[in-house]
Amino acid sequence: MEKFVEQTLLYDFYGELLTAHQRRIYEDVVLNDYSLSEVADELGISRQGVHDNIKRCNKALQDYEAKLHLVEKFVNIKEKVHRIHRLSRECENLSRQELVSQVESISQEILEEL
Amino acid sequence: MEKFVEQTLLYDFYGELLTAHQRRIYEDVVLNDYSLSEVADELGISRQGVHDNIKRCNKALQDYEAKLHLVEKFVNIKEKVHRIHRLSRECENLSRQELVSQVESISQEILEEL
Repeated sequence: MEKFVEQTLLYDFYGELLTAHQRRIYEDVVLNDYSLSEVADELGISRQGVHDNIKRCNKALQDYEAKLHLVEKFVNIKEKVHRIHRLSRECENLSRQELVSQVESISQEILEEL
Repeated sequence: MEKFVEQTLLYDFYGELLTAHQRRIYEDVVLNDYSLSEVADELGISRQGVHDNIKRCNKALQDYEAKLHLVEKFVNIKEKVHRIHRLSRECENLSRQELVSQVESISQEILEEL
């Protein structure tokens, strides 16, 4: 997965477990693409301080995922629901029986993961 | 939701964020239904100690859910995937168009939540 997408997903899932201060810095630098210096000036801390903070946040978010695997689980489920959604929109070439059987089998797979 | 089901779900999602000691006590008492006294004897701690530990675990698990809402999200998605799965198994009375349109609409709802 592309690094920015991964960071955004991890932050979406676990960001609330960071402190308000960490979230502010993380959002400014990683999500809103301000430079380390801009954020450092804004908060009156060193550039290195901002950098270390981001590093600690990334580590914390990755540790949560290593323990809970919820991003991985939800990405898998999303991919399968997309397949069902696409099937329903592009099913002209499928017989009714093929359509029903594919929807049944993919939804069964999702239920086994949930 | 029934209390035991809720505790099990919360533990499934966030249990790995508890310490190994907490998990051991929580599994014995809440999931495997040993008595407080049995677990206290086994671990050489007081009955009150076991009780306090369970209370702290429940609070920690509820705090994670209050911040992340992942169990709530998951329960919603599971209910909708069940609807799709049931549709695929009990669609004799639906026209092809009704079936496709319902599957499309429910899968769209899920994608908006994910």
